[in-house]
Amino acid sequence: MPVTLAELARRFGAQLRGVGDTPISGVAALNRAGPEQIAYVSDRAHRQLLNASRAAAVVLRAVDARAYNGNALIVDHPQLCFARIAAFLEHSDGPRSGIHPRALVDAEAQVAATAVVGAAAVIEAGAVLGEDVDIGPGCYVGAGAEIGAGSRLVGHVWIGARCVLGRNCLMQPGVVVGGDGFGYVKDGEHWIKVPQLGRVVIGDDVEIGANSTVDRGALSDTEIGDGVKIDNLVQVAHNVRIGEHTAIAACVGIAGSTTIGKRCAVGGQVGIADHLSIADDVRVLGKSLVASSIAEPGTYSSALAAETAVRWRRHVVRWKRLEQTEQRLRRLEEDVSSFKEEQR
Amino acid sequence: MPVTLAELARRFGAQLRGVGDTPISGVAALNRAGPEQIAYVSDRAHRQLLNASRAAAVVLRAVDARAYNGNALIVDHPQLCFARIAAFLEHSDGPRSGIHPRALVDAEAQVAATAVVGAAAVIEAGAVLGEDVDIGPGCYVGAGAEIGAGSRLVGHVWIGARCVLGRNCLMQPGVVVGGDGFGYVKDGEHWIKVPQLGRVVIGDDVEIGANSTVDRGALSDTEIGDGVKIDNLVQVAHNVRIGEHTAIAACVGIAGSTTIGKRCAVGGQVGIADHLSIADDVRVLGKSLVASSIAEPGTYSSALAAETAVRWRRHVVRWKRLEQTEQRLRRLEEDVSSFKEEQR
Amino acid sequence: MPVTLAELARRFGAQLRGVGDTPISGVAALNRAGPEQIAYVSDRAHRQLLNASRAAAVVLRAVDARAYNGNALIVDHPQLCFARIAAFLEHSDGPRSGIHPRALVDAEAQVAATAVVGAAAVIEAGAVLGEDVDIGPGCYVGAGAEIGAGSRLVGHVWIGARCVLGRNCLMQPGVVVGGDGFGYVKDGEHWIKVPQLGRVVIGDDVEIGANSTVDRGALSDTEIGDGVKIDNLVQVAHNVRIGEHTAIAACVGIAGSTTIGKRCAVGGQVGIADHLSIADDVRVLGKSLVASSIAEPGTYSSALAAETAVRWRRHVVRWKRLEQTEQRLRRLEEDVSSFKEEQR
Repeated sequence: MPVTLAELARRFGAQLRGVGDTPISGVAALNRAGPEQIAYVSDRAHRQLLNASRAAAVVLRAVDARAYNGNALIVDHPQLCFARIAAFLEHSDGPRSGIHPRALVDAEAQVAATAVVGAAAVIEAGAVLGEDVDIGPGCYVGAGAEIGAGSRLVGHVWIGARCVLGRNCLMQPGVVVGGDGFGYVKDGEHWIKVPQLGRVVIGDDVEIGANSTVDRGALSDTEIGDGVKIDNLVQVAHNVRIGEHTAIAACVGIAGSTTIGKRCAVGGQVGIADHLSIADDVRVLGKSLVASSIAEPGTYSSALAAETAVRWRRHVVRWKRLEQTEQRLRRLEEDVSSFKEEQR
Repeated sequence: MPVTLAELARRFGAQLRGVGDTPISGVAALNRAGPEQIAYVSDRAHRQLLNASRAAAVVLRAVDARAYNGNALIVDHPQLCFARIAAFLEHSDGPRSGIHPRALVDAEAQVAATAVVGAAAVIEAGAVLGEDVDIGPGCYVGAGAEIGAGSRLVGHVWIGARCVLGRNCLMQPGVVVGGDGFGYVKDGEHWIKVPQLGRVVIGDDVEIGANSTVDRGALSDTEIGDGVKIDNLVQVAHNVRIGEHTAIAACVGIAGSTTIGKRCAVGGQVGIADHLSIADDVRVLGKSLVASSIAEPGTYSSALAAETAVRWRRHVVRWKRLEQTEQRLRRLEEDVSSFKEEQR
Repeated sequence: MPVTLAELARRFGAQLRGVGDTPISGVAALNRAGPEQIAYVSDRAHRQLLNASRAAAVVLRAVDARAYNGNALIVDHPQLCFARIAAFLEHSDGPRSGIHPRALVDAEAQVAATAVVGAAAVIEAGAVLGEDVDIGPGCYVGAGAEIGAGSRLVGHVWIGARCVLGRNCLMQPGVVVGGDGFGYVKDGEHWIKVPQLGRVVIGDDVEIGANSTVDRGALSDTEIGDGVKIDNLVQVAHNVRIGEHTAIAACVGIAGSTTIGKRCAVGGQVGIADHLSIADDVRVLGKSLVASSIAEPGTYSSALAAETAVRWRRHVVRWKRLEQTEQRLRRLEEDVSSFKEEQR
């Protein structure tokens, strides 16, 4: 059901220009938007597509609005305004509804009347799907798992038994929540598996990227707080706890039992060792290794930037002969010290 | 079928305290254990939950047993004892049995009478599933692949044609065994694919973590030895060989044709270059790069730990000006040397 | 339909030895090749299997041909010749055909008569599958996605709505193309999702390895050029563009909006930061971090190789005390400078 452009202006504090009655039913990119869709402009590349757009309206800055004759919402931060409009208008990107005839829903699963289950999805006994939950094709929801209202599993997602997702979560394709943690004890030269008996408990508004993995806890649970955003191919080990609104970029690995604070930002390919405690508001730059706990907010790094291989090798050689460099320095100090002695 | 607590004490060499006839049918975490389940205590956090637990019995150290009145197995290493009990009691975490009506098993696949195949799983012609094999929902077992007795594919696992798993293996969700190796030859500026004709051959008691990938060999096979444990999101390239009882943490990448010895421990995010040979009993610390073969057992590293970004940048600046530092040193040496000359 | 050995010799410029009428229907490894299959020898390990092979013919160098009595194609580069023969002979490794009765193909999808769709695969409305397309078991092709002629999705592959693959592409198991990019704007301490409205557009002859992920663009598209080869567990973020014939090894992460040139080679576990521009013909060594744009072709690195942990720690200690080392140097310079003053 569309809303009017005037309603969007009022709701999101934008300055309206043009026809306030224009119906808006969705968002789209500038070059693909149709007559009931709203688009936005925030960089140079898209500015030039502006007057060719068929969008019903465009969200833009005042400076860009001058060069455009169509319906507009004028704001200081077009991308943020557009993101809010999108969240308001779009609850799902597909017209699916109900349970697909080729979905496999156990008779003892609880599925809300408004929930959607796609083709070839498997829902086990005791699983609970809340209102407006959207389980995409080929997903698996284990026995006793709970998926909160409004959450969406895009496709090929695996949620293990007893794991819990809050409301309005979004799991991208291939995500695995609730695989076993990597826990063994040595018995001679053999590794004996420690049963992984905990769950994964995920808060509200959490997004996890494609093919990322979150292991279930060994005894207690692995916990991901409200509003956490995790990118693709990230590993979250057993008993990790991640605080609210923390963002984690792609290819990060977080080892077992580590606690990460709130509002942290972890760059791509960062590694965080096990059993650490990271404070709130910590930022770790891409490819760094966090090897010990961090008690203070701030920015941390151990990343080295690439140079030409020739120059890089020279830098490494000089570093690796620091022992000799220090010895030369010591000899000089002795020489200079004996000069001084003599001069007295 | 439950066993008695006395039987467990006898079998695993524990000191029994309490009612030896207590029936035990499974393991659980202390705070979730029911009246036929055994739990364990090994750290402070769980000790305080001890007297509130409904567990039938608890495995713990003598020092912890003093503060507890219930049935107990007293041992020096509770986690190890518990892990052994779990392996003894639990052969599967689900009550599934037989072939799910929505599984797709080719008429020419050989499936043992005690094997289980879940919903939406696909078993191709010539595949062999041994006794007590458990193929979870949405798994794929390719033509001619062999899955040894007691092995379990948890769900969404892909085993390529002709690949072989030994007995009692455990493949976590999303594992891919037997994708093509990354092999091309240059033809002008084009890359021509080298057919990947080998297999993956995996021994007994191997566990592979969620979304990890093991490529098939180019001509000969990729081989993983008995008792190897591999964590999540690990890449094992074509023709790699991994020795028995080696453990590999998450996000590791092992490049083509490298051989890793027995009982090695590879830390998270380690990279190991191609065509190397790593000895037995080698330990590589997390995030290191192994760029050449390792002939001696021991611990190896090239990891750098994060500091505040400000301090880190200063360290890097001082390193990168070592050329000037060395020049200054050389000039000093010349000066001092000429002083010495003059003093003679 | 087999071809003759003589025909292969003629077509690929090899010197024929033996029976030219020998029928060849496929390729295989030396130790597995049957009577209508051709194998190759390029290294010592396989040379000794030569005379025990049942292969119909072998591709090898003149020097190896002397020790072999069977049918042979003699060339300078056996692996390249073999790869070309394989590409010529083998268009698919399975005898599947048509649409599996348990595939789920929407009535409004366009499927070419020669396309193959496997069990439990889901093809959404408006999807287009070209001639000879092979969609493996458990794959998903989203609404309006296009798969070019001759392309193959091996199994458990996820292609999101509206994404486009060119001709003769090969997607290994678990690949995710068209998950959402990682785009948010801050609203107080909350992250608001920026709708990811672009597509992924992939050229011809592109291969992507197991469990790799390619995100759709935010507004414009993520683009992968013709002939690009991507290994396993690689992350390609939104709006990245990769030039033709570039090869990317396993576990690489490429951050958003970065452009990579043609014919580049990116080593395993490399990280490339966002919004960069990398020139054509750039080679980045494994585990390096590319933190700024690269304008010139050549080889780049920031990788450090592992040593024994004891030696490594000493190197790090000497590096980290460079501040004191430089101070000692400065003091010496002052002393020497005052000696010089005095000597005047």
